[in-house]
Amino acid sequence: MNIIKDRLTSLRRLMERDEIDYYLITSDDYHASEYVHDYFKSRCYMSGFTGSAGTLVIGRSWAGLWTDGRYFIQAASQLEGTGIELFKSGMPGVPSIREHLASVMSEGQTLAYDGRTVSRSFGTSLASSLEGLNIRILNSTDLVDEIWENRPAFPSEPIYLLTGKQAGASRKDKLRQLRDSLDCPLLIASLDDIAWLYNYRGDDVLYTPVAMAYTIVSKDMAALYISQDAVSADARTALEDDGIILKPYLQIYDDVSRQFGSDDSPCLQMDMDTVNEALTSLAAHPVFKANPVLMFKACKNPVEIDRIRNAHLKDGAAFTRTICRLKNLAASGDQTFITELDVSDMILSDRMDQDGFISLSFESIAASAEHGAIIHYAPTEETNIHLSRSFLLMDTGAHYWDGTTDVTRTIAMGPLTEYEKECYTAVLRGNLNLGSAVFPEGTSGQQLDCLARKQLWEMGLDYNHGTGHGVGYILSVHEGPNRISKTGSSTPLKPGMITSNEPGVYIENKFGIRLENLILCRRREHAPGFLDFETLTLVPFDRDAILPERMTREELDILNDYHARVYDCISPYLNESERTWLETATAPISKE
Amino acid sequence: MNIIKDRLTSLRRLMERDEIDYYLITSDDYHASEYVHDYFKSRCYMSGFTGSAGTLVIGRSWAGLWTDGRYFIQAASQLEGTGIELFKSGMPGVPSIREHLASVMSEGQTLAYDGRTVSRSFGTSLASSLEGLNIRILNSTDLVDEIWENRPAFPSEPIYLLTGKQAGASRKDKLRQLRDSLDCPLLIASLDDIAWLYNYRGDDVLYTPVAMAYTIVSKDMAALYISQDAVSADARTALEDDGIILKPYLQIYDDVSRQFGSDDSPCLQMDMDTVNEALTSLAAHPVFKANPVLMFKACKNPVEIDRIRNAHLKDGAAFTRTICRLKNLAASGDQTFITELDVSDMILSDRMDQDGFISLSFESIAASAEHGAIIHYAPTEETNIHLSRSFLLMDTGAHYWDGTTDVTRTIAMGPLTEYEKECYTAVLRGNLNLGSAVFPEGTSGQQLDCLARKQLWEMGLDYNHGTGHGVGYILSVHEGPNRISKTGSSTPLKPGMITSNEPGVYIENKFGIRLENLILCRRREHAPGFLDFETLTLVPFDRDAILPERMTREELDILNDYHARVYDCISPYLNESERTWLETATAPISKE
Repeated sequence: MNIIKDRLTSLRRLMERDEIDYYLITSDDYHASEYVHDYFKSRCYMSGFTGSAGTLVIGRSWAGLWTDGRYFIQAASQLEGTGIELFKSGMPGVPSIREHLASVMSEGQTLAYDGRTVSRSFGTSLASSLEGLNIRILNSTDLVDEIWENRPAFPSEPIYLLTGKQAGASRKDKLRQLRDSLDCPLLIASLDDIAWLYNYRGDDVLYTPVAMAYTIVSKDMAALYISQDAVSADARTALEDDGIILKPYLQIYDDVSRQFGSDDSPCLQMDMDTVNEALTSLAAHPVFKANPVLMFKACKNPVEIDRIRNAHLKDGAAFTRTICRLKNLAASGDQTFITELDVSDMILSDRMDQDGFISLSFESIAASAEHGAIIHYAPTEETNIHLSRSFLLMDTGAHYWDGTTDVTRTIAMGPLTEYEKECYTAVLRGNLNLGSAVFPEGTSGQQLDCLARKQLWEMGLDYNHGTGHGVGYILSVHEGPNRISKTGSSTPLKPGMITSNEPGVYIENKFGIRLENLILCRRREHAPGFLDFETLTLVPFDRDAILPERMTREELDILNDYHARVYDCISPYLNESERTWLETATAPISKE
Repeated sequence: MNIIKDRLTSLRRLMERDEIDYYLITSDDYHASEYVHDYFKSRCYMSGFTGSAGTLVIGRSWAGLWTDGRYFIQAASQLEGTGIELFKSGMPGVPSIREHLASVMSEGQTLAYDGRTVSRSFGTSLASSLEGLNIRILNSTDLVDEIWENRPAFPSEPIYLLTGKQAGASRKDKLRQLRDSLDCPLLIASLDDIAWLYNYRGDDVLYTPVAMAYTIVSKDMAALYISQDAVSADARTALEDDGIILKPYLQIYDDVSRQFGSDDSPCLQMDMDTVNEALTSLAAHPVFKANPVLMFKACKNPVEIDRIRNAHLKDGAAFTRTICRLKNLAASGDQTFITELDVSDMILSDRMDQDGFISLSFESIAASAEHGAIIHYAPTEETNIHLSRSFLLMDTGAHYWDGTTDVTRTIAMGPLTEYEKECYTAVLRGNLNLGSAVFPEGTSGQQLDCLARKQLWEMGLDYNHGTGHGVGYILSVHEGPNRISKTGSSTPLKPGMITSNEPGVYIENKFGIRLENLILCRRREHAPGFLDFETLTLVPFDRDAILPERMTREELDILNDYHARVYDCISPYLNESERTWLETATAPISKE
C-alpha cells in the first residue's frame, strides 16, 4: 500500500506547486466510453482500486473514493491501508461528490481535474453545486500524467474499413442522411457513432472495436480527427475519396477553438453526455442536443441484419457446444472438477474456433449457485469457485466480423428443487412472452417491459435491472436509444433495432437465473402499422429446469417452435455426439 | 339562427362600449369542473352549439368556434346560418385559438374574457402567444351576463353532510393530514376535493354531487366559501364545531386580494389547472403545485371501500336486470321494437329502483351496432336508432349514497360473426388479464397498460383511448391522479385507489366493443411489497360472444371465478326468472 501512498504524496506535491486544493480523477476516457483503454486508468493507478466505475478525489491531507454497490466489498479491500476513504454512492447518508466538495471546500479554493475525462453534464452539475463559494475550477490539467511512470502508450491501433458488403450503406449515404438532419455543424465524440458513420472498426478500446477519434460534420465538410498511425495509406485514400478530411487526433481542440470559439462563430451541436467538458467549453455557441447518429445507427440496415443473423449462427453453435460439454460433465458428476474461470475459458475457446471471431463483447460472467445472485459478478482469481450441483449462470457475448452477440443461459448442473424450477420457468415465460409480443408502431420499451416481469410478479418476485438494452453491429454491446425497462425508456421501438430480452431472478445467497436473447424489431407481416420481434439468439434453454405444467399451451408452442429452429440452424455446425445431445435438448415438450 | 345573430350583435355593442376587439367564451365554470351547471353555458347561449367542449371567440365582425373531433358534425350543423366559423381542433392546418389570435390581432388591441372561466395555465399560454404584440388583456368581464335574458340562477342547492359511518374519516382528521403536507396556505377550487375534505355532498353540478365552493386551508385556519343558502343551520353548526369558518361564496376574491395580494403577503399554494386565472392573479406570491388532496382522496379508506362494494351490489343487480331484459328481447327477436334511448331509460329506471340512488354519474351510452364505434356516442333524439341484431354497447354509471359506479358491457342482440366473437374475446381477455395483474409497489398505470391491449395487438387492433381512469367516492366519475394508459400515467398505483379497466375495440361503420370493470388496488395477501386488484363491478359478460378456444385455461378460470362471484353476489337481489337467467349466463365455460 506504500506505493499508493507514495503516488498520492507525489501528486500532492504537484497540487501544491499549482495551488490546487482538490484534484478529481474519474474513470472515463476522453469519449465517455463504457470500457476504456489502460492509458485512461489514472484512478486505478492512483488508488489501487481496479473496479470499472469510481471517482477519486484528492485533497491536501485527505482522499476519498466514490463507487457504487457493485464494488463496495472490492473497493473496501483494495483501499485498505491507502488512507483513502470509501464513499458508498447511493447509500443513505452518504454525500455525493458534489455535496461533499460543497461542504469541505472553502471560499477561494481551487478544484482541478482533466476536463477531457469529465462529461459536460457532470462538469456543469459540479460547478452549480459550488456556485456562490467563489471556487476556482481548472479543467485542463492532467497531473497524473506527470507522475505516472511507464504509463501505457496512448492507443492508436490500425483501423479496418468495412466494405460495402459489410456495411450495407456507404459513407456518402450515411453523411447525406446525417446532414439532412443538421441545422448547424455537429461534433461527435462517441467512438461507436464515429466508427458507424465512417464504416470502420478499430481496436483501441477493450471489448469495443472502435478507434480513438472525433469528428465534425457540417453541410459541406466532414473532418475525422484520428491518429495518423491508425490509418493506412489505402484507408486514407478511401476516406479522402469520399470527401472526408483526415486530421490529427489532438487537433480537434485547436480547431474547435479557432472555428467555433469566438462570438461571431457559428453554433456547434454536441451531446452533453458524450462530448467532454474541455471540448464543449471551447465552443462559443454550443447547442446541446442528442446526437442524431444514435437513432440512425440503432436501426440496422438489411445487410447488417443478414450478417448479424450469421453471427448468431456462429455464436449459437459455439455456446451450444459449451453448454453441451457442461451438461455432459454434470450428467457424469464431474462438474465439481471445473471452476467458474474454467467455464469462462471454455466459452472463449469455443468462440475463438469460429470464423471471423474478433473478441468478446464484454467480460464473461460464469456464476455458480449463489454467485449468480450477484448481478454484476464476474469470476476473478479471488472469487473463483468450483461448480456446485446447482444453477450455473453464463452471460457472454462476442464480436465477429458478422456482428455482435450477447446471450445469457442459466443451466442446471445438478438436480434442482421445485422452487428453483418454478423460478426458472417464470423467467423463461417472461422471456418468451416479451419475445413474441406484437405491438403498434410508436410503442416504447417501457410499455412492453411488464410482459417480461408479469410471471415473476405473480410469484412475488422481480429483478432490479432493466429488461433490455440496444446492441450494436460490431460495435458497443450496450447502445441506445432503444431500451426496455420500467421507466425512462420512452423511445419508440423501430424496425431494425436490436434489443436484449433478459429477465432474471436473484435469490440472495442461493442462486441467480437470467435468460437473455437478442430480439430484432421488424414490421409484422399482414398487419399494417404493427411490429413484432425476431429472436436472433439460437441457443437452447435447459429442459431440466422447466416445469411444463406451469406454462400455457401458447407458451409451450413458442418454446417448441424456438427449439426446433435452434436445432435446424445450429445442428449443421455440430459434431455427431453434440448433435444427438441437441436433438434431445430441443425435443418438443408437451403439457402432460 | 337569427336569435344567435341577434345575441352576437348585442354582445358586439358591449364590446364597442368597452373598447374590446376580441371576446373569448370558454365552456368552463369557475372551478374547471368536468360537467357544468346551466348557469355556465354562456358559450352555448351565444353560439347555439350544445357540445360539452368548445371555445367561442368573437371579433367585431367575425366569430369562430373551436371544438374537438367528437363534435365536428354536431357543431357544423348547429352553427349553420349563424355566421360563426368552425375550427376543427387538432386537424392538420387548423390553427389553435392562440395561433389564430396571434395572427389576427394587431398592436394595441384588446382581448377580454371572464377570467373565472379560464384556467391559469390556459391564460398564461394565451398571454405568452400574444407577447410582444402589446395586447391589452382584460380578465374580469362577463359581458354575456349583461345580455343573457332569463339566465338560469346561480346554483346553490343545499349540501348534505356525510356521517362518520359514511365518510370513514372525520373532517378534523382530513384537515390534519392535509396540514401536515402544507408549507404555506393552500387554496382549493376543485369542487370534489373540497367536498371530500369537508365530508359533504351537493347538487350544483350535473352528474357530480358537489356544491359551488372554494376553500383556503392554512396550518391554523380553514375557511369554506359557499352560498349561505346551501348550508342549513345544523350543517353550519357541525362545520363550525370542527373549526371551519364559513364565508360567502364570492368573498374569496376579496379575501385573496386582502390576505395574499400585497408584496409582504404570505405565499398561496394553488393548482394552476383548477384554480381560475382571475383568482390566481390576485395572489402576489402564488406557488403552483398539484393539490395534495388529490392523492388523499384517491386512496379510499376502509369505510369508503366497504360502502363502494355495496354500491356495486346494487348497481350490479340493476344493470344485470337490464341486461337480462335485453337478452330476453333479443332471444324472442323483439329487440327491433326498442331504441337506444329506450335502453338508456331502462338502465336509468332499473337503477332508480335501488335504495340510495342519487343520480347517474354521466350521460348513459347505449350504442347499437355501428354507433358503438363512435367512442363518445350518446343517443339523442336525432341519432336514436332501433336496435340491430348486432352488438349493443352500454357504458353507464351512477351515484348511490354508498358510492359511485361506472360499468360498460357489450352484449350480442343477435347472432354474431366469428370475427365479432374474436374481437369480443380479445377485449375480454385484456380486461381479465389487467384485472388479475400482480405487481410490485411503485408500479404505475402506464406499466400495466399493455396487459389490456396485448390480445388486441396480436390481432392487429388497438383502441385510441386510455385503459383506465380513477373513480371517486360519491364524487366525480373521473378523478386523478391514478390512470392506466400508454403514456402520461406514471403515478404509482396505491392501495385504495379505484380505477376503471376498460379495453375496447372499434370497427368503423360496423360495431364497437368495450368491457369495463372498476378495480380496487389492494395489498396482495402473503406477498409483502406486492399489490393486486379486486374487481368491484359485478355484472356478467356475454357468454354468447365468447370463444373459449381463444382463451387460455388460466383466463377461463379467472372468468369462471368472476361469474361464480357475480352469481353469488347478485342473485339474492333478483326475482326467480332473472335468477334462472343469471345462472345460465354465469355457468362455467370449459375449453372444449
